[in-house]
Amino acid sequence: MSSMKPGRRRFLKGSAALAGIAAGAGVPAAGAFGVPDERTPGTKYATEYGERSRFEAEATKRRHDYPQRPFPAKKLTPLQNSVGIITPNGLHFVADHYTPPDINPEEHRLLIHGMVERPLVFTVDELKRLPSESHIYFMECLANSNVKDRGGPVLDTVQELHGRTSCSEWTGVPLSILLDRAGVQTGGSWLLVEGADAGRFSYSIPMGKAMEDVLVAYGQNGEAVRPEQGYPLRLIVPGFEGPYNVKWLRRIKVVDQPYMTKVETILHGYLRPDQKGKALWFQFQMPPKSVITRPAGGQTLPGPGFYEITGLAWSGHGAIRKVEVSTDGGKNWKQAKLQEPVHSMAHTRFRLPWTWDGEEVIIQSRCFDDQGEAQPSLAEMNRKLGVTDEHWLKTSVSAYQFNAIQPWKISRDGSVHNAMFDSATLARAGSAPGGADHTEH
Amino acid sequence: MSSMKPGRRRFLKGSAALAGIAAGAGVPAAGAFGVPDERTPGTKYATEYGERSRFEAEATKRRHDYPQRPFPAKKLTPLQNSVGIITPNGLHFVADHYTPPDINPEEHRLLIHGMVERPLVFTVDELKRLPSESHIYFMECLANSNVKDRGGPVLDTVQELHGRTSCSEWTGVPLSILLDRAGVQTGGSWLLVEGADAGRFSYSIPMGKAMEDVLVAYGQNGEAVRPEQGYPLRLIVPGFEGPYNVKWLRRIKVVDQPYMTKVETILHGYLRPDQKGKALWFQFQMPPKSVITRPAGGQTLPGPGFYEITGLAWSGHGAIRKVEVSTDGGKNWKQAKLQEPVHSMAHTRFRLPWTWDGEEVIIQSRCFDDQGEAQPSLAEMNRKLGVTDEHWLKTSVSAYQFNAIQPWKISRDGSVHNAMFDSATLARAGSAPGGADHTEH
Repeated sequence: MSSMKPGRRRFLKGSAALAGIAAGAGVPAAGAFGVPDERTPGTKYATEYGERSRFEAEATKRRHDYPQRPFPAKKLTPLQNSVGIITPNGLHFVADHYTPPDINPEEHRLLIHGMVERPLVFTVDELKRLPSESHIYFMECLANSNVKDRGGPVLDTVQELHGRTSCSEWTGVPLSILLDRAGVQTGGSWLLVEGADAGRFSYSIPMGKAMEDVLVAYGQNGEAVRPEQGYPLRLIVPGFEGPYNVKWLRRIKVVDQPYMTKVETILHGYLRPDQKGKALWFQFQMPPKSVITRPAGGQTLPGPGFYEITGLAWSGHGAIRKVEVSTDGGKNWKQAKLQEPVHSMAHTRFRLPWTWDGEEVIIQSRCFDDQGEAQPSLAEMNRKLGVTDEHWLKTSVSAYQFNAIQPWKISRDGSVHNAMFDSATLARAGSAPGGADHTEH
Repeated sequence: MSSMKPGRRRFLKGSAALAGIAAGAGVPAAGAFGVPDERTPGTKYATEYGERSRFEAEATKRRHDYPQRPFPAKKLTPLQNSVGIITPNGLHFVADHYTPPDINPEEHRLLIHGMVERPLVFTVDELKRLPSESHIYFMECLANSNVKDRGGPVLDTVQELHGRTSCSEWTGVPLSILLDRAGVQTGGSWLLVEGADAGRFSYSIPMGKAMEDVLVAYGQNGEAVRPEQGYPLRLIVPGFEGPYNVKWLRRIKVVDQPYMTKVETILHGYLRPDQKGKALWFQFQMPPKSVITRPAGGQTLPGPGFYEITGLAWSGHGAIRKVEVSTDGGKNWKQAKLQEPVHSMAHTRFRLPWTWDGEEVIIQSRCFDDQGEAQPSLAEMNRKLGVTDEHWLKTSVSAYQFNAIQPWKISRDGSVHNAMFDSATLARAGSAPGGADHTEH
């Protein structure tokens, strides 16, 4: 923000909201706004389906989690550019296990069979005639927020660290309607759900959840679910770990036990660091998590002054009830404002006004959901799992459902970095030797 | 939906929701699901920004309102394919008056001047540091739902008739914050708002609205506002006619009267049919409107049976309180279910289960908002304006804020057409000679 006096730069004062924003921009001559001027003749955006600005190329990059292996795709949502709670379909994260199919919806079928009275086959058009619902839900890969990425260096940006979560308005038919029509037989307690990808991705889902709020979705953010997300049909299992939301859905078999499929056991078992050789399965809901998306790692603040701190919080257990932000390394916490309405099992945008004095500082957020769950500090996670910080730094084990508080360090030069394992952070969090937990509720 | 018995087709009964859906699809052999089969090797969707399925080409067409004049663009949202309440950014309607600019956001500035204590200039990055809000709002061209399109034939599809409305989650800075900082002088009662397009599109906005809920938006559905929608900055004026939402926003001048700009007077004056030569200006809010999007004109029902009737309702005055649907030409009305949460001044999805018996029928919806406004029948509109149906059929005057109930006729062959001016509709609505209004509340 600049005064109109050409060439003069000053800090504007007198408004709490704006105090401290420096005049960073060149100030145009006042006369520039008084007379018509020449304009570029216009972008040729005559495409049927609209496009982003050519100046937003950087903001459209989802990156490849594994650049050496573009298929199956692992792509991350650029949360550092996110605003509001909706993720555009073109930026939704992708974490596939097998090569995805190219499906003609007119040839696609959904089969429901197994322990049912009436096996049924649906076309996509038939499903679209049935009673539908739309809900805004987050989705998150269970391996999101790995403190390290598969044994590599500690990552720095909110996209690299937390970009395997997105949020959409999903539309589809409640699975309970289809199951009721098929007639679940006594003893039918689980579903084996299968996708139409090359690897026939399969996952087991408990019947209780299936009858509660699962959708057979054909719509995402007002249009057809995209190929990356399971076109033409995707199972939406609100709040559960990402893989339950089976893409390219083609088969639901009612069974009497979990089927212990390859991905849900070998790949997605929880090898607990404190129990050598033992693994947990079927953790279901993603735990409460929050992260500041601006300012965040990899960004640079142009100078001291006013900034809105903003970020996202979500929980697979229910609705976010409260988000707190600390701007002093965890000593004091302030309650952030939540974007209304707060949706259950959806990204929730939080915002807090803040003035940066230019000194080094650590900022972080923590959230609480309406089921009484709280986002833990790294020290609390360590105590619960019986590990030390060294575990996270020196092993390459995937940290499933990792939801420790994410601290960002802002240096005096304005640069922002991941401070999860800074000694100062650990000491303040009571995680390093001699530290104690000074957080105040 | 088909039974699994190959070759046998039947109507499935016993479930209210599904009763009557015919087995329209070919039934695959049961064995087809039992063994692994070959799959196409996968779409090459390795783009950084995701894309729609190649099978959705038809659903991505916004059409050109004026094909002979692609610029400035007039493009329509394909409401017949809409689900939920969010419009994807690539399908948002466009109704430009001048050639749009190609703006580099780093060079763009927003000027606030006129009757203020401190003229201010903001860069886009400076605006993004300020307190922000996100809200889901509809937008609608004031000329949406013309019963005829500029003197042409009566249109048939929900896209052609009503496709100049869309709904997004907008993110930006409340204009009140910027005006407070600039310091509005006594007597500053209106804003003259200007875009950076070739024609310097300008519109006058009353100060009361500006201080209430207007946003300077840089985000739409989680990403940067697109060039078609005003990149990098657009004014969002919730509930008001489309043109108030000035694109490519570059200047806000505080003034003491409406400026009677060319577009807001000559082009957007309300030439009332009952007051020759007189025009109304500054109608502001769009009135309550609803329309069934499926089944809708241009579609064909495959046969008798169960269908969910679904559509959208919205009002510039507030939140939709109730939507009613008639499936007997307006004699009886049933209350539809509204998608929760209902947002104020936003598209609201409504749904009603229905079984079609295969006979010719007229279906239609009407809505009521929380400010006591009701969507009128065509007869009620005619009475209010002092015109006859002939007026709409024989003149080429744009019908601004036209919000009469939209009837669709479903013929015995399943085809659906616009029945606004069918004699049967008019008679039932009490609009044609000898008719009477039989609607029941």
